[in-house]
Amino acid sequence: MPTSHTVRSYDAELKYLAEKIVEMGGCAERMIERSIASIIHDDFQLATAVIADDLFLDEAERDIDEKAITIICKRQPMAVDLREIVGAIRISSDLERIGDMAKNIAKRAAAISEIRQPEAFYCKLETITILALNQLKEVLDAYTKRLLDRIDVVRERDNEIDALYTSLFRELLNYMTEDIHNVAVCTHLLFCVKSIERIGDHVTNIAETLYYIITGHHMSFDRPRDDLTYTVGVGDKKAD
Amino acid sequence: MPTSHTVRSYDAELKYLAEKIVEMGGCAERMIERSIASIIHDDFQLATAVIADDLFLDEAERDIDEKAITIICKRQPMAVDLREIVGAIRISSDLERIGDMAKNIAKRAAAISEIRQPEAFYCKLETITILALNQLKEVLDAYTKRLLDRIDVVRERDNEIDALYTSLFRELLNYMTEDIHNVAVCTHLLFCVKSIERIGDHVTNIAETLYYIITGHHMSFDRPRDDLTYTVGVGDKKAD
Repeated sequence: MPTSHTVRSYDAELKYLAEKIVEMGGCAERMIERSIASIIHDDFQLATAVIADDLFLDEAERDIDEKAITIICKRQPMAVDLREIVGAIRISSDLERIGDMAKNIAKRAAAISEIRQPEAFYCKLETITILALNQLKEVLDAYTKRLLDRIDVVRERDNEIDALYTSLFRELLNYMTEDIHNVAVCTHLLFCVKSIERIGDHVTNIAETLYYIITGHHMSFDRPRDDLTYTVGVGDKKAD
Repeated sequence: MPTSHTVRSYDAELKYLAEKIVEMGGCAERMIERSIASIIHDDFQLATAVIADDLFLDEAERDIDEKAITIICKRQPMAVDLREIVGAIRISSDLERIGDMAKNIAKRAAAISEIRQPEAFYCKLETITILALNQLKEVLDAYTKRLLDRIDVVRERDNEIDALYTSLFRELLNYMTEDIHNVAVCTHLLFCVKSIERIGDHVTNIAETLYYIITGHHMSFDRPRDDLTYTVGVGDKKAD
């Protein structure tokens, strides 16, 4: 939190925003874990819980937006306080979208349960999810403690998620071409992996917003956040 | 634009934000048009132009963010002016993401050009794109003129995009199961259609932000913006 204020209630208002962000982060983490578990264990009850949780994130984002505007109007904040408030608006938007991604995954549980696919796919899906989840936990921890030194690590480690995504995308595509019966289920799995890859991007956005909150500067544009699967096509099948 | 201000330069600052949004909107429209044309006509030069355009949107979003913060600090705006400024931040974020979607589509041009698919798919892809594009044009026009009465129409018409997306998703999936050679290209086409569907969601977000700018209230949550393809699976193939 920023330096203390003469007006105690102003502090309480800023604290409210920061605590709400942490609460949203916890909810987003739980949704990610459960959404993938619902896919791996064909657990529709868990999938339903994820879909219900999403409403909390939608409402929390709106709550933060409204509180932020009220604080700006009432307190006319400067410098670091204003960055805290604008940062909370941005981070809550990324957390809400992370929740959307988890919901998207959970909603595919029924379709994916139709035909059990090779266990290796579920293992890799779990691995990439754990990576994304650890990234999210790390950035939320950095947010709580206002740590600058972990931001670069979070940002760079997104490359690992991208590499795993590309590899799994390619494997799923190849597997689909081997057996026609797997096409529908594997397509849904592809969309799940894509959702995890996008969660990684949102975590990177949060890291960049945190950098802005702490320093007042924007990070450079040189982050390699691209999806690398765009050119995975028919032509490169032979190379695998 | 809001009512005139005693300070002329303050007006100019707000006008700058609004004009920059319109400029971003024009760029996003062009990117969507060109990205789909690059897929339909296997035009890699056009695809490259779309990818280059994306940088403008990234920089414009950051520019709006910085100007918005500066205006808030300097002018300590209240009520409608503050909504204008916060609204500009939100809308520029949606336009930037629309640009990302168009870039994602353009980057698939090479992989999709590998095997020409039935013309019907390209026609339907064009149809859904025109729908999304018209929605974007309509909401940008409503933004420029601060029209409240078109917002509901924009929001509801997103259902048409969702319905077309679901139908095309199903057709592509069925086609993939008929001929193994189409799996890779059709998967890329699926991701293109999904990107267009998401553009529709961002346009709806913009409509909701515009409602907030004009009225000071949030629209209700009852918008049906869900992807309806989650349960398109193996089981329903027989029903087609």
